[in-house]
Amino acid sequence: MTESPTPVSLRVKPGPNRLAVTGIGNAMLDIISQDSNEVYRQLGLVKAAMSLIQEDQLETFFNAMGPTIQMSGGSVANSIAGVAALGGTCGYIGKVADDDFGQRFTHDLTSMGVEVDLAIAAADEGATGRCHVFITDDAQRTMATYLGASNQLRVSDINETLIARSEITYVEGYLFDLPPAKEAIRKVVNFAHDYDSMVALSLSDMFCVDRHRRDFLDLVTNDVDVLLCNETEVCSLFQVPTLEKAFNALEELGILAVVTRGPAGADVLTVTGAVTVPAHEVEHVIDQNGAGDMFASGFLYGLALGADPVESAELGSLCAGEIISHLGARPENDLEELAIEAGLL
Amino acid sequence: MTESPTPVSLRVKPGPNRLAVTGIGNAMLDIISQDSNEVYRQLGLVKAAMSLIQEDQLETFFNAMGPTIQMSGGSVANSIAGVAALGGTCGYIGKVADDDFGQRFTHDLTSMGVEVDLAIAAADEGATGRCHVFITDDAQRTMATYLGASNQLRVSDINETLIARSEITYVEGYLFDLPPAKEAIRKVVNFAHDYDSMVALSLSDMFCVDRHRRDFLDLVTNDVDVLLCNETEVCSLFQVPTLEKAFNALEELGILAVVTRGPAGADVLTVTGAVTVPAHEVEHVIDQNGAGDMFASGFLYGLALGADPVESAELGSLCAGEIISHLGARPENDLEELAIEAGLL
Repeated sequence: MTESPTPVSLRVKPGPNRLAVTGIGNAMLDIISQDSNEVYRQLGLVKAAMSLIQEDQLETFFNAMGPTIQMSGGSVANSIAGVAALGGTCGYIGKVADDDFGQRFTHDLTSMGVEVDLAIAAADEGATGRCHVFITDDAQRTMATYLGASNQLRVSDINETLIARSEITYVEGYLFDLPPAKEAIRKVVNFAHDYDSMVALSLSDMFCVDRHRRDFLDLVTNDVDVLLCNETEVCSLFQVPTLEKAFNALEELGILAVVTRGPAGADVLTVTGAVTVPAHEVEHVIDQNGAGDMFASGFLYGLALGADPVESAELGSLCAGEIISHLGARPENDLEELAIEAGLL
Repeated sequence: MTESPTPVSLRVKPGPNRLAVTGIGNAMLDIISQDSNEVYRQLGLVKAAMSLIQEDQLETFFNAMGPTIQMSGGSVANSIAGVAALGGTCGYIGKVADDDFGQRFTHDLTSMGVEVDLAIAAADEGATGRCHVFITDDAQRTMATYLGASNQLRVSDINETLIARSEITYVEGYLFDLPPAKEAIRKVVNFAHDYDSMVALSLSDMFCVDRHRRDFLDLVTNDVDVLLCNETEVCSLFQVPTLEKAFNALEELGILAVVTRGPAGADVLTVTGAVTVPAHEVEHVIDQNGAGDMFASGFLYGLALGADPVESAELGSLCAGEIISHLGARPENDLEELAIEAGLL
């Protein structure tokens, strides 16, 4: 405990009706298997990236997988589950279908105490979204996502109250893949500004950034208070070849940004410069799926409690370390206990 | 490698058309959550045991759970998945419904190379079986099982060819909870005798033994070559208060038996006496669910390769160690690689 740079007492939990973080993202069920590189290659997927697939491809992709584990996923939903596992109050906004997957997704968040506002898609708007996650021996994850009902998120589905009550509103970059969701993101950001909720954005995926660079740049330039990304995503955003150049571009924007770099740790960029926080040591890395999402849990929860960005990144690093030590992108261990043991909460 | 008591070359893989092990059991999907002791107590479950529930209780049990992970389960099916993960050829006989759970169960075994013969239940015979697994902080698992379609296993569902090709036929004790399955077990055992396949039996659960003691004793006395059980199950079988007395009873039967005792290791009883094989050291035990099943994988696969019982138990111990280090009863790591590294294959 004495190693912590800040006494625990400085951390202030949000008041009884307040939420630390509300997330908005693609509500997804993960179907996870451990496979050889051959499998995803034959399916035409790009390693470590997320590709979109259509409903008529679902059977082919499932059949190609090894033995599967199914659990709730969705990038920002994972982060919200992580905040809840840290003991934080939080909310989640998304869209599911009225099916078994949708019920499970809802159950898995509500049973952690998350206040969910999940719109239900109409019968002809597709099944609940699912993501086929191929884990290879090097612990990398390659994803094939069927957006389904999550794709139908509309302005009318946005719950103003959850945002109004939140210290931070966390927006998933993948949402830009949903044409009608752009307007919804605009509404989310406006609500957040109205209620002094910090706007945090995840860049989600380098190809997603590539598909929607103009929208991302607009949002980052005009609305975002906190940017979460990895190396490839931030380089894609600014179309620069090196991380250093991306840092320069971020500095000009003058926002708080954190760039995760796997085993090399995370770079926290504030107005006073950059600090590298080391990755948490993990004996046996099984599955990097969710590492960025769980980093976001710790980082955002730290910020919501008033910790400084570097301390918040340390909490993020601890959470990321937990998730990569097992299959799946939702925590298996008591994150709050781990964080208290490490003197970070 | 030099620590291995037997050179690897003595292990003989079954011929190209032969199978190391064919299992017959309840085909189940596991729905797993990490919960406090309070949750299963309120549901009236007995800790660390398996209770049967009915279809109209499914919603109540699911709603009471924390965030869930779903994956294929079923005690003997887990063992067969473990044998496949060790590189062994194997078969599986059971019954599912024509639903999403049934398709996933089938996929998860066939994608590992297991030859499955899964009968499909009629539409009015219930959904695919599922087991609600409550994991508590002490890594114990408490189970509530809906048998559903697995309950409908009939004599006509037994695939003679799979048994005829197998070194070992592995029967799940839980099958005795299905009245029509008793006749099916009889047929399985007769086939196994006809084709010189060793008959291995798992006692499954102390309460299951209690419900069907006479049937278990008949089978153990007259048909079983290899008995797999834990302390409470074997004491329940012989209605004796101590493990020592159970050992005496087993000695009189003169069969090969292995009694798993969690962190205390496993006792292997052969005609020449008892040997204790220590448990594999695990840094952080998350979930004991599947420990017995995975022990059986290594133990039976060792026997099928011609390893002696103690060496086979060492392989079992290695597999059990892998499974308790994470959530779920199917292996996440490459068991064959782990076993080769340990000089056990």
